[in-house]
Amino acid sequence: MNSPLTPSSPTPHDPAAENMERQRRAIAALGHELRLLVDATVRTTASPAALNHLADRVRALTGQLTGHRRRPADIPEVDEFPGGVRMYSPVTGAGSPLAPPMRVTPVDGGVVGRCRLGIAHEGPPGYGHGGVSAMLLDELFGWACAAAGRPGMTISLGTRYQGPVPLETPLLASARVTGTDGRKTFVTGSITTETDPSTVLVEADGIFVAPGLDMARARFPALGSITSVLPDEEMTQP
Amino acid sequence: MNSPLTPSSPTPHDPAAENMERQRRAIAALGHELRLLVDATVRTTASPAALNHLADRVRALTGQLTGHRRRPADIPEVDEFPGGVRMYSPVTGAGSPLAPPMRVTPVDGGVVGRCRLGIAHEGPPGYGHGGVSAMLLDELFGWACAAAGRPGMTISLGTRYQGPVPLETPLLASARVTGTDGRKTFVTGSITTETDPSTVLVEADGIFVAPGLDMARARFPALGSITSVLPDEEMTQP
Repeated sequence: MNSPLTPSSPTPHDPAAENMERQRRAIAALGHELRLLVDATVRTTASPAALNHLADRVRALTGQLTGHRRRPADIPEVDEFPGGVRMYSPVTGAGSPLAPPMRVTPVDGGVVGRCRLGIAHEGPPGYGHGGVSAMLLDELFGWACAAAGRPGMTISLGTRYQGPVPLETPLLASARVTGTDGRKTFVTGSITTETDPSTVLVEADGIFVAPGLDMARARFPALGSITSVLPDEEMTQP
Repeated sequence: MNSPLTPSSPTPHDPAAENMERQRRAIAALGHELRLLVDATVRTTASPAALNHLADRVRALTGQLTGHRRRPADIPEVDEFPGGVRMYSPVTGAGSPLAPPMRVTPVDGGVVGRCRLGIAHEGPPGYGHGGVSAMLLDELFGWACAAAGRPGMTISLGTRYQGPVPLETPLLASARVTGTDGRKTFVTGSITTETDPSTVLVEADGIFVAPGLDMARARFPALGSITSVLPDEEMTQP
């Protein structure tokens, strides 16, 4: 299993790994361009005629993507699940037009996430949507669990908003596991700006649970083919 | 002030209102096409060459949006803030490529929101991201506060996940105000599927606070020109 926090790097002369990297780079490049288009779209004050013309052009682009499309629950071949790269995650995915995207890195005792929110993530005018902050922390907490060898799903998340989260500003989110109880993992974390890490804007506590192997297989049929990456001893622990 | 839950309808022979409606329709049409493009993008298994070609085409489209662009904190002319239509809300905005979008309607004692999540909102394979559920409820809670005449901002949100939220399935979210304490408003709500409204998948409790008028003006400079829409007696209540 790959480390949960580092995508597999291509070994020299490993064609499969090189193809994977090429695919991921192309997905990320398209994600980047779509994020710029999203940003331009939510900022523009163009006329109805200009917007309608653009809508026609967008429809034509969508029509070009006529090949194989994965269904919900199909795990993309470029992904590592559980506990690894998710190219289309709405929070961290380099290929997601929705994601800031947040870059997650391990640190002593936990993980940190870095990103900037755009106008597309706006809640109150000029600030990030409160739900977006919850989403950043929920996702980062999942990475903290995975980094601690305990991948799991959220069962509760309590978020407290202490100050508005500015847009277009480098943000620093952090998360760490504070304890465990059977299959439950307790996580805490916060969001600040990069420049003022002592002023907490949003803080949260979460409880995650590692599903038993039976539940994991029932909920994620696509896992059937990749059960070898499941840390069974953790997932089936009572 | 418009009702918080109904966009202003054009009166016959009101050119300003008709222009507003035309602008909103064009924004919504472009938002719709972008959501389809986002969906196709996160599902496709196209080759790197095809993805790179598409990225070039997307960049060209973005380059066409060269006119005036609003800055963060500028309130779009098509919006009603606080407590009204937000065309680019990442949750309800008909013009947002990120939003499902959730449609909010008033009901006896509260509000309900209806939407379907797509693969772009995926967390665990096949299910909605937990943070997206938190975002739906955070937003809907804000509408519940506004519908009760108490627009405010989230200060805390506690979300409990009882079952996975399916993708591409009609969802029903509901929220109601359960009490008030000075400027605080207490809200509760849940998410179910439309077809099984008795099985709660996600439930949450939130506390919202109406900022005093001074804080509202300090945080939202753009409000300066539209203070007449602020329900002052509520917003300045201790």
